[in-house]
Amino acid sequence: MSGEFSFIARHFRPLAGPESLDLRDDCALISCPPGQELAISTDTMVENVHFLSDDPPETLGRKLLRCNLSDIAAMGATPYAYTLNVTIPRNSRYNDSWFNAFVAGLSEDQARYSVTLLGGDTTSTSGPLVLSATVFGRLHKGTALRRNGAIPGDSLWVTGTIGDAALGLLALQGKISDPSGFLADRYRLPQPRTGLILNGIVHAAMDISDGLIQDCQHIAEESEVAIDVLAEAVPASSEAKSLGPEWLEQRLTGGDDYELLLACAPEQENALIEICQQAHTPITRIGSVHSGKSVRVLNQNGQVIQFLKGGWQHF
Amino acid sequence: MSGEFSFIARHFRPLAGPESLDLRDDCALISCPPGQELAISTDTMVENVHFLSDDPPETLGRKLLRCNLSDIAAMGATPYAYTLNVTIPRNSRYNDSWFNAFVAGLSEDQARYSVTLLGGDTTSTSGPLVLSATVFGRLHKGTALRRNGAIPGDSLWVTGTIGDAALGLLALQGKISDPSGFLADRYRLPQPRTGLILNGIVHAAMDISDGLIQDCQHIAEESEVAIDVLAEAVPASSEAKSLGPEWLEQRLTGGDDYELLLACAPEQENALIEICQQAHTPITRIGSVHSGKSVRVLNQNGQVIQFLKGGWQHF
Repeated sequence: MSGEFSFIARHFRPLAGPESLDLRDDCALISCPPGQELAISTDTMVENVHFLSDDPPETLGRKLLRCNLSDIAAMGATPYAYTLNVTIPRNSRYNDSWFNAFVAGLSEDQARYSVTLLGGDTTSTSGPLVLSATVFGRLHKGTALRRNGAIPGDSLWVTGTIGDAALGLLALQGKISDPSGFLADRYRLPQPRTGLILNGIVHAAMDISDGLIQDCQHIAEESEVAIDVLAEAVPASSEAKSLGPEWLEQRLTGGDDYELLLACAPEQENALIEICQQAHTPITRIGSVHSGKSVRVLNQNGQVIQFLKGGWQHF
Repeated sequence: MSGEFSFIARHFRPLAGPESLDLRDDCALISCPPGQELAISTDTMVENVHFLSDDPPETLGRKLLRCNLSDIAAMGATPYAYTLNVTIPRNSRYNDSWFNAFVAGLSEDQARYSVTLLGGDTTSTSGPLVLSATVFGRLHKGTALRRNGAIPGDSLWVTGTIGDAALGLLALQGKISDPSGFLADRYRLPQPRTGLILNGIVHAAMDISDGLIQDCQHIAEESEVAIDVLAEAVPASSEAKSLGPEWLEQRLTGGDDYELLLACAPEQENALIEICQQAHTPITRIGSVHSGKSVRVLNQNGQVIQFLKGGWQHF
């Protein structure tokens, strides 16, 4: 036990903010300014499921934090703080030097996203590394961006480029070429869109984690609308483009993008574009919202493209 | 993925409160009434570390929830809500029937402690079952009970009986006899003292999870005081007593009690006793707080008892 206390003091106390009570008490204490509420997201990452055993330790905590921050961004909340649960395999690989690198990565992202550690738990396991984080954001009451607000007539938009992370995983598995390492980086380090303030601008928002098409289905289902996605319009990085058109399905269904998927009324499109320009965030119109109950991917001729995974599904 | 969604809908949506947004969005949204703050505790339990593989599934989620609720109680906060991360071994044992029982236990404790599920994550692993929960309580700003408030002259108190859970683990391992199953129950299902409102009454509080003596050291260290514990005064259940005095060290150092350890000024002792009586919570004076830097366990003659683990330590 005393080993656990000194381990926490050594590695995690430097990450802790004032609300953590210096990690010395039973709980952290946080408050919420008048008129605000808290958005809460929690995610678990398991070695060899959500990251690879040989991923650099610097990136692991950052990826976990960023996946959650992407959810915070999707609700239109400002990042605030997080808790971290680390379940460590009982072998020598996870030593002080490993944790120094792990914590250095977290520390860098704490500064980048203005969050601090509230508390956590460290445990040991006979199995693989398991990391859980619960991340808190703050926003004005009643302004949260939801999945259920899209209406027929809205246009559909995404930030950034789609499919890089899914291709990056294939690259790390040696299945495709990634000479610059750009795709692998996109797999290891998502770029959550925390800088955008879209509350009051878009009708619906979510972050793309399960794959563009499946996440369109989430918006369609929650908003009770149909969505058409124009395959050609979905933005691809030059690295993804260079692999050729045969990777379209992988890009649109692969997941781990952590870009925002947005439904916007026509009269707000200019405001959306302007806000994204100010934040230096690429934004692309990829489709449209209709009445109905389907999600369709259309080619240049308006014909439906059938994917093996995801794609045109009634529900 | 769609398997995950239907799994969550089937098992976890019935546990979810309104702040969860029906588990259908990127985040949960919680608010904090004016003048209040949130206490946050997070814990992870790993199969074969924090519970046994053959522990009934009904008890696992409840134990996790209750360990965290004990931290919430130790800060003087009122239970409010929680998030849950479940990392499930890939084998058939963790099927729908297992999760039905797991969720039934959680559901029972949600009603008992007036908490609801905010959100969570389910993942799979090649290793053992890993459960993490982050629990939220609410309290009036500035009234949190801390570990660092004990002062010389205070008396030291515990709720309930000490050592049952540690003996219960030994019973479940077949090392001691537990004919009624009382001790095993105390290991499997802690009874967090959430009903006590001790804010403004005691100088310091924490919950006993690492063992009475080690937790006395935490209070002593954080409050910069010395503590004397009278071994004879530490309350034992009749089941623990029946095992004989040779289990004293195990009882005082074993941990998993989830009772409260309190430091109280002499002029507040009657108030403390009265509040505990009203809540039907046994409370016992077990020692005293002095100036200095030691934690000592004393026998009836005032002599120091040396334990192999914990006990009289300078730090």
